[in-house]
Amino acid sequence: MPVVPILSDEAAGADALATFDAIRAARETDYINNFWRALARDPALLQATWERLSVVMAPGALDPLTKELIYIAVSVTNACGYCIHSHTAAARAKGMTDAQHGELLAVIAMASQTNALATALQVETDDRFRA
Amino acid sequence: MPVVPILSDEAAGADALATFDAIRAARETDYINNFWRALARDPALLQATWERLSVVMAPGALDPLTKELIYIAVSVTNACGYCIHSHTAAARAKGMTDAQHGELLAVIAMASQTNALATALQVETDDRFRA
Amino acid sequence: MPVVPILSDEAAGADALATFDAIRAARETDYINNFWRALARDPALLQATWERLSVVMAPGALDPLTKELIYIAVSVTNACGYCIHSHTAAARAKGMTDAQHGELLAVIAMASQTNALATALQVETDDRFRA
Amino acid sequence: MPVVPILSDEAAGADALATFDAIRAARETDYINNFWRALARDPALLQATWERLSVVMAPGALDPLTKELIYIAVSVTNACGYCIHSHTAAARAKGMTDAQHGELLAVIAMASQTNALATALQVETDDRFRA
Amino acid sequence: MPVVPILSDEAAGADALATFDAIRAARETDYINNFWRALARDPALLQATWERLSVVMAPGALDPLTKELIYIAVSVTNACGYCIHSHTAAARAKGMTDAQHGELLAVIAMASQTNALATALQVETDDRFRA
Amino acid sequence: MPVVPILSDEAAGADALATFDAIRAARETDYINNFWRALARDPALLQATWERLSVVMAPGALDPLTKELIYIAVSVTNACGYCIHSHTAAARAKGMTDAQHGELLAVIAMASQTNALATALQVETDDRFRA
Repeated sequence: MPVVPILSDEAAGADALATFDAIRAARETDYINNFWRALARDPALLQATWERLSVVMAPGALDPLTKELIYIAVSVTNACGYCIHSHTAAARAKGMTDAQHGELLAVIAMASQTNALATALQVETDDRFRA
Repeated sequence: MPVVPILSDEAAGADALATFDAIRAARETDYINNFWRALARDPALLQATWERLSVVMAPGALDPLTKELIYIAVSVTNACGYCIHSHTAAARAKGMTDAQHGELLAVIAMASQTNALATALQVETDDRFRA
Repeated sequence: MPVVPILSDEAAGADALATFDAIRAARETDYINNFWRALARDPALLQATWERLSVVMAPGALDPLTKELIYIAVSVTNACGYCIHSHTAAARAKGMTDAQHGELLAVIAMASQTNALATALQVETDDRFRA
Repeated sequence: MPVVPILSDEAAGADALATFDAIRAARETDYINNFWRALARDPALLQATWERLSVVMAPGALDPLTKELIYIAVSVTNACGYCIHSHTAAARAKGMTDAQHGELLAVIAMASQTNALATALQVETDDRFRA
Repeated sequence: MPVVPILSDEAAGADALATFDAIRAARETDYINNFWRALARDPALLQATWERLSVVMAPGALDPLTKELIYIAVSVTNACGYCIHSHTAAARAKGMTDAQHGELLAVIAMASQTNALATALQVETDDRFRA
Repeated sequence: MPVVPILSDEAAGADALATFDAIRAARETDYINNFWRALARDPALLQATWERLSVVMAPGALDPLTKELIYIAVSVTNACGYCIHSHTAAARAKGMTDAQHGELLAVIAMASQTNALATALQVETDDRFRA
């Protein structure tokens, strides 16, 4: 159970509803997921988070699926179960195949272990890696 | 300074040198970076780490540059300075542009903040995100 | 389900009960929460943890509510769900308003993202920040 | 050494300079610290980060010093050395005393250890902590 | 609920079944736990993970129980609930007593707090600790 | 450079010196490492940290070397460079061989990768792992 109420449309204030409407329009669905409904108690935080997310995840130099894979990688490393579920679902909706998911997991696992090894050994950065 | 010696070719044993040779052949360079030279004191760990890395980072359902971006995302979240330097260099060598790097950072920053929010709110996973 | 039993008063030994009594006296409630009941299998660890907590969270140069906000910030970053629930409840009991909670979350989210950016960029500390 | 150049005013583009100007005006100093100069290669990320920081750290339901203490707590838990230095300096500039700093550290240490214990024991949340 | 199906023997492919057989033979039990069944959708990742685990956790310079204690320590710090449950069970199966478990928790809690303090203070490494 | 001064014996107050004396007596050396000298500005925190460390790391159901290995595992996962250096040195002083160090690293790397996989897959705990 979350530490704040999950606000229904009826319980959300006008400011929060305006952001819900923006989410609905952008995603072409009526469904508002729990993350946004939990944030809705603080409409300014809800709006700022949604607006920044819209900018960051839009197509650009990286395509939307690649951005979702990066999002999952960060969420796994931060152990955010909700975020793993929601962004794995988002990646699938954007076309992630089972084979791509498997390779994503393999890279995350590989990085996790070499991160631990490099940190445990306190390896110093090679001069040639410096910009 | 690392907690173990950074072994030169002369100081590395025959088993470690065999892995150095494999790295050199795969990367088409004589340069062996400090991570591998630090691991060389334990040739079995060196070999297992290199061989798995070769498999995981090979082209597959995801292209090598995408894999490097994922690797950087994990390394940043784990705060592994060495890994950030080495894999940012690797990503550039594989064609990462400044614009792509900027978007990678923006996605990592975005995920970091929504991970924190979802965790702080203890949001429960929506049924529709469950597989 | 926890990896150890949650000991009732009847199942707890005399040493653990003595700490339960200290908790009850300090908090002016009969309720002992699951964290302490899980620790009760190891009465020395229970006692040391409780006694240190009592000292650290007492009013001092920082007021008790500010200490709870700091506690929540650490717990969120460590992804400790239990601790987030228990210390958000404690902060509310000490007067945290919804507006304060919202700002706490906004600061945690902000720090999480600039932490990620500074780490990803491997920014070096400015001389003027050094003490 | 950072993975990107630390841009001087001369090397920064017009968009980045506009944000530098905003930082200078807000902070009443000519000094721009390395974090912003590293971000300056991506003026949109620089601007978005600065503008959000300005909003989040402004006085509100929590005072600016309390916000800095929370910022430090997150930065310590994320092991961001740069952020610890810059926000400890900021907290001192906003009046943090040595005694307050000592208590901040004690609370961070306390939370870190009980986070570990609650996670190690996989303690389930008490019903009364649920909102 | 996991983000992938937990494959029964019937649903798993021949390659995954071959690894299940290897696990059954090594552990002398028919039971295959959920972690392996979740990995089974990607038989190559399943096989590589199992084979490396078998090598790493085998008796060597460190005994199997000590290895499990180290495994738990990492899992707690990474907040991996599944891993804490499975490796605490494994440690008990290898003879971990309640007293050893209590001391393990006390060391993890101690390290967590001094890690936080050393990081918060940005203490520089003493020359004599350098190898 | 640390965020607080590293206090010499001359600069430390009487209370901090008393703890320095206790450290010297327990460790049978005059050398006081930087961690304690950084904490010395807050004598109460210094004393509480040292006294708890003495209790936790004393021989008990686990031997002192095993405790150091667990300490290193936590410190690596928390990316605390200072702690990795100081506790790797301590482990060596207590007899850790190169082979043991290599196996410690291999277990840490293994746990780091399976932690990531179990978290990425959101695997649910098997009933038989529950106590």
